[in-house]
Amino acid sequence: MANEIFGHIEGFPPGSEFSSRIELSRAGVHRHSQAGIAGSQQVGADSIVLSGGYEDDHDDGDTIIYTGYGGRDPNSGQQIADQELIRWNLALARSMQEGLPVRVIRGAKLDSPHAPQEGYRYDGLYQVVDFWQERGEAGFLVWRYRLEVLDPFEYHLTTLPPRHIRETRRVSSTIQRIVRDTELAREVKKLYDYRCQVGGQRLEGPGGPYAEAAHIQPLGSPHNGPDVMGNIICLCPNHHVLFDIGAYTISDDYSLVGSIEGRLEVKPQHRISREFLQYRRERYRIS
Amino acid sequence: MANEIFGHIEGFPPGSEFSSRIELSRAGVHRHSQAGIAGSQQVGADSIVLSGGYEDDHDDGDTIIYTGYGGRDPNSGQQIADQELIRWNLALARSMQEGLPVRVIRGAKLDSPHAPQEGYRYDGLYQVVDFWQERGEAGFLVWRYRLEVLDPFEYHLTTLPPRHIRETRRVSSTIQRIVRDTELAREVKKLYDYRCQVGGQRLEGPGGPYAEAAHIQPLGSPHNGPDVMGNIICLCPNHHVLFDIGAYTISDDYSLVGSIEGRLEVKPQHRISREFLQYRRERYRIS
Repeated sequence: MANEIFGHIEGFPPGSEFSSRIELSRAGVHRHSQAGIAGSQQVGADSIVLSGGYEDDHDDGDTIIYTGYGGRDPNSGQQIADQELIRWNLALARSMQEGLPVRVIRGAKLDSPHAPQEGYRYDGLYQVVDFWQERGEAGFLVWRYRLEVLDPFEYHLTTLPPRHIRETRRVSSTIQRIVRDTELAREVKKLYDYRCQVGGQRLEGPGGPYAEAAHIQPLGSPHNGPDVMGNIICLCPNHHVLFDIGAYTISDDYSLVGSIEGRLEVKPQHRISREFLQYRRERYRIS
Repeated sequence: MANEIFGHIEGFPPGSEFSSRIELSRAGVHRHSQAGIAGSQQVGADSIVLSGGYEDDHDDGDTIIYTGYGGRDPNSGQQIADQELIRWNLALARSMQEGLPVRVIRGAKLDSPHAPQEGYRYDGLYQVVDFWQERGEAGFLVWRYRLEVLDPFEYHLTTLPPRHIRETRRVSSTIQRIVRDTELAREVKKLYDYRCQVGGQRLEGPGGPYAEAAHIQPLGSPHNGPDVMGNIICLCPNHHVLFDIGAYTISDDYSLVGSIEGRLEVKPQHRISREFLQYRRERYRIS
């Protein structure tokens, strides 16, 4: 397979339409003529097609919950086995870790108000912001990915009159990581005096200490974890990244499970709920 | 002084106009009736006023280069001493480290195409994404801050017809940190096999290794560092945060200067230019 190309493809701005997968592939917008994910696990996935193959997919327009590949009967299309974090599924994980933009193409068969009337439509660049494992509707484990539009301004403009649409430009830099914080998150950081609950590190800068807060059961759809102190921990950026990408989860006794060893330090007045830890373990465990 | 309030103030959406500083203060949009920066060094700054006081300020609309306070003669307004990283200047540094939104108000005296015709106008939420020290036009050291609009979509909509303007909503989460990456940055990460050049850490996730690239002389205005390998280093998130917030800089012999000790590991084929190291040291040193 040719090298991946990340970002817009020259000559095919968001909104471009294609009559078939072959045409999409020839344009280089989604090079694989059959698979839903194009790319490699070494470099990352550069495009995906949403065409209604998985009933588990969920399309909100600017955010998408996308199901990985594998475990389906080639004839019936039924899920008959667990999906593994290999090949294209790993490629999407790599894209998240590298902050690579993923082209999203929607097909007419997709059950979504955002699907085109016919054929396929290139809908612009998204980024993978989360991935996890869960039991799909058919009862087997599937990998799921949350994608968000890379440039909300560009995205919303495509729904406004054409005169407002900006020139398509090449993406020269990508967003690798965004850390969001809530009011309560700052309370937790204060409680630990900005010290990492996993490694004990405390970063100090000219503007005072620096730490990040992580929600154990993530905020937002489809996880919908609550923004309460029992669901928030204080981490240094390194342990936050490792938590986000699923390098470790946390047992009920606060020992770490995964590729790093250790234990979460928890103050007596900080009551972490086991249901959140369990939610996390079930979805973010390493295979 | 009352507690800081971060985010929009109820009843005063972006675009709200005020006839005087007193009116701005009473509305709670910018509580301090004289200082350009409102807030505290413990919690952070919650608003700033751009009113043309400093000739060093630079206003591009969605990005602003703002000069800190202090060192000016109260009568003439001339810069007569170096500015220090104290009080309100520290408050803005704190806002950057905590990812807190800062309300931006423009006054009619501001020399900018974005200034209002008269009085003051609240122009929405920005975030501090960088701060550094440099010699201002009067020859004294000043602290400078780069602010960017928090929500580009909201910002651009204020320039479109009113029917497109969304309802103002409270900011419940803030962006604490965005890591952008370039094509060349990925080359540098590969060269070091994703190992931190400062601490030697190598983070490993299900999607492979994770590292971040940092530009020594930052990209973008006003630094305009080039995107070349001699200006890029490979760091773990912790050492990247510490580098960004000015906790350390790097000597020509690669030893670290600042609040952490150590040495940058550099491969023979990676030629880091001294001019970039010097640029960084001159602006990001700790007082």
